Amino acid sequence: MKSRINVITIGVNNLEKSLAFYREGLGLPSNGIVATEYHDEVSGADGTIAMFELQNGLLLSLYPRTELAKDANQKIGKESSTEFSLGYLTDTKEEVDALLKQAKSAGATITDEPRERPWGIYSGYFKDLDGHLWEVIWR
Amino acid sequence: MKSRINVITIGVNNLEKSLAFYREGLGLPSNGIVATEYHDEVSGADGTIAMFELQNGLLLSLYPRTELAKDANQKIGKESSTEFSLGYLTDTKEEVDALLKQAKSAGATITDEPRERPWGIYSGYFKDLDGHLWEVIWR
Repeated sequence: MKSRINVITIGVNNLEKSLAFYREGLGLPSNGIVATEYHDEVSGADGTIAMFELQNGLLLSLYPRTELAKDANQKIGKESSTEFSLGYLTDTKEEVDALLKQAKSAGATITDEPRERPWGIYSGYFKDLDGHLWEVIWR
Repeated sequence: MKSRINVITIGVNNLEKSLAFYREGLGLPSNGIVATEYHDEVSGADGTIAMFELQNGLLLSLYPRTELAKDANQKIGKESSTEFSLGYLTDTKEEVDALLKQAKSAGATITDEPRERPWGIYSGYFKDLDGHLWEVIWR
């Protein structure tokens, strides 16, 4: 296995609302909801997703939990914030505070206010509309 | 917000076992468990993690669910496979099959065998020791 991850797909409850949070609220560029024409007869999953192109071709994809469950052949789990977090590095300390404020304005919940942590970073956490954690980090 | 994610942190139950799965089982390079000297008096979280450097400086980090919960100021959720998936693009179709076999040998569970999907990819899913989904994709 090569040392790479090409796509991060997060399961969401409402694709339109989550797209608005990430695109309008946080300002990430996206072509909006796509692949609505696809339906998988085998699993019953729809292809409908929204994607954001990040650095170096890395993709962030929003996909309804219901469809991820069908596509991966899994039962839908209960929302849980301790399955993963996404880390965003800022260029300045002030950006940590500003981005958390922006996320809150966009409808996110701040779970831990920015502060110095003993492992040499200044960071805070928010969770998105579906409870997914983001840690905003300056180091 | 810039279009970037720098770190993907996944919550695990047993750091040693998950490190072995990803390092020995899947072959991702890591310096092993680090930051064991750090403890956060504010949250009670330990810093102990294991990291894998992926392409272009992207980091994959394994962090105990208990500590992620403390660090982000959240309750520990129940394991759920529909919170997210990580997508890995292969260079050939055969690599999809081979990587899923390798993951299974390493202790992963294949949740959906590789097959053509109507949105133009050939892919299958496995979940790691903690139920985190990976989709292995050729397109």
